[in-house]
Amino acid sequence: MLPKFAVRIMEPKKILLIGAGKSATTLIEYLLDHASMESWKLTVADMDREIAQQKVGSSPFAEACALSIDDVPLRQSLIKAHDLIVSMLPAHKHIEVAQDCVAFGKHMVTASYVSPEMEALHEEAEAKGLLLLNEMGVDPGIDHMTAMEVMDKIKAKGGEIIGFESFTGGLMAPGSEEGPWKYKFTWNPRNIVLAASGGAVKFLHGGKFKYIPYHKVFRRTELIDLGAYGEFEAYGNRDSLRYQSMYGLEGVDTLYRGTLRRPGFCQSWDVFVQLGATDDSYLMEGVGEMTHREFINSFLYYSPSDSVELKLAHMLRLDLQSEPMRRLKWLGMFEEEPVGLSGKASPATVLQHILQKKWSLAPHDRDMIVMVHLFDYKCDGVHCHLRSHLVVEGDDAQSTAMAKTVGLPMGIAIRNILNGTIAMRGVRIPVHKEIYAPVLSELSVHGIGMQETFLKGGLPAH
Amino acid sequence: MLPKFAVRIMEPKKILLIGAGKSATTLIEYLLDHASMESWKLTVADMDREIAQQKVGSSPFAEACALSIDDVPLRQSLIKAHDLIVSMLPAHKHIEVAQDCVAFGKHMVTASYVSPEMEALHEEAEAKGLLLLNEMGVDPGIDHMTAMEVMDKIKAKGGEIIGFESFTGGLMAPGSEEGPWKYKFTWNPRNIVLAASGGAVKFLHGGKFKYIPYHKVFRRTELIDLGAYGEFEAYGNRDSLRYQSMYGLEGVDTLYRGTLRRPGFCQSWDVFVQLGATDDSYLMEGVGEMTHREFINSFLYYSPSDSVELKLAHMLRLDLQSEPMRRLKWLGMFEEEPVGLSGKASPATVLQHILQKKWSLAPHDRDMIVMVHLFDYKCDGVHCHLRSHLVVEGDDAQSTAMAKTVGLPMGIAIRNILNGTIAMRGVRIPVHKEIYAPVLSELSVHGIGMQETFLKGGLPAH
Repeated sequence: MLPKFAVRIMEPKKILLIGAGKSATTLIEYLLDHASMESWKLTVADMDREIAQQKVGSSPFAEACALSIDDVPLRQSLIKAHDLIVSMLPAHKHIEVAQDCVAFGKHMVTASYVSPEMEALHEEAEAKGLLLLNEMGVDPGIDHMTAMEVMDKIKAKGGEIIGFESFTGGLMAPGSEEGPWKYKFTWNPRNIVLAASGGAVKFLHGGKFKYIPYHKVFRRTELIDLGAYGEFEAYGNRDSLRYQSMYGLEGVDTLYRGTLRRPGFCQSWDVFVQLGATDDSYLMEGVGEMTHREFINSFLYYSPSDSVELKLAHMLRLDLQSEPMRRLKWLGMFEEEPVGLSGKASPATVLQHILQKKWSLAPHDRDMIVMVHLFDYKCDGVHCHLRSHLVVEGDDAQSTAMAKTVGLPMGIAIRNILNGTIAMRGVRIPVHKEIYAPVLSELSVHGIGMQETFLKGGLPAH
Repeated sequence: MLPKFAVRIMEPKKILLIGAGKSATTLIEYLLDHASMESWKLTVADMDREIAQQKVGSSPFAEACALSIDDVPLRQSLIKAHDLIVSMLPAHKHIEVAQDCVAFGKHMVTASYVSPEMEALHEEAEAKGLLLLNEMGVDPGIDHMTAMEVMDKIKAKGGEIIGFESFTGGLMAPGSEEGPWKYKFTWNPRNIVLAASGGAVKFLHGGKFKYIPYHKVFRRTELIDLGAYGEFEAYGNRDSLRYQSMYGLEGVDTLYRGTLRRPGFCQSWDVFVQLGATDDSYLMEGVGEMTHREFINSFLYYSPSDSVELKLAHMLRLDLQSEPMRRLKWLGMFEEEPVGLSGKASPATVLQHILQKKWSLAPHDRDMIVMVHLFDYKCDGVHCHLRSHLVVEGDDAQSTAMAKTVGLPMGIAIRNILNGTIAMRGVRIPVHKEIYAPVLSELSVHGIGMQETFLKGGLPAH
């Protein structure tokens, strides 16, 4: 029901947002802020109705409801009753929502990678005049948009792209970087523990296809220096080759996407990878009685006397006083402290549980999103290097940089879909000017935009 | 049709063998040898009828037929027309045959590990009076039977098993061990390339559960010295914990199954694992134009000038003249020789194709099966160590030790199922005396049996 002071005479557009977790905070704020002006009605659905209600507050434009995504009749009746569906569910849950959206003729927005099952809906969605917009968060999301804006500009000036590298990281802001890892979970912890485990990293370098298996990903890092923001290290992020055609980069020599951490993170994280402690494919026995120390020991050879520390250091050819050993000690990995889970659990679940004891945000903690693009191109016969970068800091543990940089592009895209500015249809990601132009324009109003630095050459003014 | 000299007046038992590849040679010989006496009629079905016909020869007790396993009507009509079905198909193809067997009331025998889908048929098979006998080859197969015979004997004498380790390898016989690897493919090459990649190795040691991830399996080896047969090294084989209840070893401290190679094999094979060259989860680009050298280079960092050899040696911290580098050179991995495949292929497929150039059996090559069990037990208060071992050598590239040690136990089991000696029903593996006793007894007639050596203590005569 529209409040009395609404002057537009039109049906309100109905938005259904499914999954009201931490990452949805900024998005819900954005939708509530614009609901009156845009004549929107928002329904926030979550497994836990209380969480949805907290986010919605007392807004007259929104209501909360309880929804278990596996409750098909309720899910479908909710989807039928709305115009646009936003899924903030875990990535593997999007497809059921997407299939309903196509069946019932609704647009959909997610921040997740397009799965093959999602891709398969493209033609039917397009034929029915529906947009299923994915990869609309920060990484993937803002990275696609800010990269395409620059590359379209270079091409428009007659330039030829030779190489493109892109790096993003969800980190802690200076002042909140306590401990040697300088890291906390600002996003789904499970995704962090399983990072890079989904398959080989694939990329192009110097015209050659390159592949890195999971157990080498955290050893093949490169250093990125962002001046006042300090140094970062990058490890390879999934299949970069996927983006060759999406970005229109068929002829390039180099194409690489990476994830940023503070220097030293990867060498230490690699200890968990080498141990097999990030494996999610089987359940360990006796987790209920397991301590942190026993967890680590279960990946090391048996000895009635040798210490866990020495066995680990020896296996990984580390000095006992080395940085990775120091970081593991800081995490309490060698303590006889109970893990605190029961029954059986995968190594990844146990590791996540231990890490959450140290890596959970305190209320005052401020996080930081860092994004860097490196463009290598030829223009008017000159070989040029352009770097663009973006740094967004969070306000506190609620209003994180992660929630902002995921929520704002989604919110802006939703506004532009519902007002008709974005008229593309089908299964899409934001590499098209029709999508990225209005979103980047409004993001800059919120202080989110890339700074460009010509490291070599430039762009002609013409 | 029975020949005239058959004196028994009874319907012939009809055996259907599906998959007439190299590994089926000895089994088919065994079945043909016993067909007259046992009153059997054998049908050998293969995708390639010619191969089936070659194996069947001019035997009056057998016929060959063409069968694509995905041709469901033909497959089912064949299964319906026989009493016992032997599947020599690749492991993942057994389940369709097994489901048909249960549906149409037929016994089944395979040499493969019991999959969860196969296990799920247990109750229905048992209720219908059917035996689906799996793991009936050499490893798994002879290992189960020879281990259980000793352990049942120890228990019968009042002994208590503390630990059990078992090792098997398909190797080359002395005199056929050319080259530094002392190895050739004597079994499905694809299985060898993917060995250990299916999940973490799981075992018990000193009362502790231990887990080894794939990328560390070939670095955690142990040496086994078999005197005149020389030394072997063992790497962990899958999930040993699975066998704890199957072997009745609930209270043991140590339970480990391993695979044997000649010393040095594992360190060199680990180079492929570390590179990601055994990955079967994605397809590489441009395999059609790829050389051996380029295949290796695709897993190494880009450089316009550094050699593939140096990059590899550096990445894996190897000397350029080290044993693994020497073995890779012997395989021709650094040659600019075309791989010889077209289109796209997984790293594992490319690697297998390159390895087959060097690791295929020559007609005169003789292979060798080596099996070693180590039993740790207490009897009359004495702590005892017993080792049993078996070595079987092949005759040539046709009559391999592998084909014998897989085919004979299957053939003997089939005979004892059809004559009623093995009367167990359900989904089984040969850990039961009713199965292993008649099979081991007849195997010893064929010269296949374990030699026992008491390393410490013994067994009471009583």
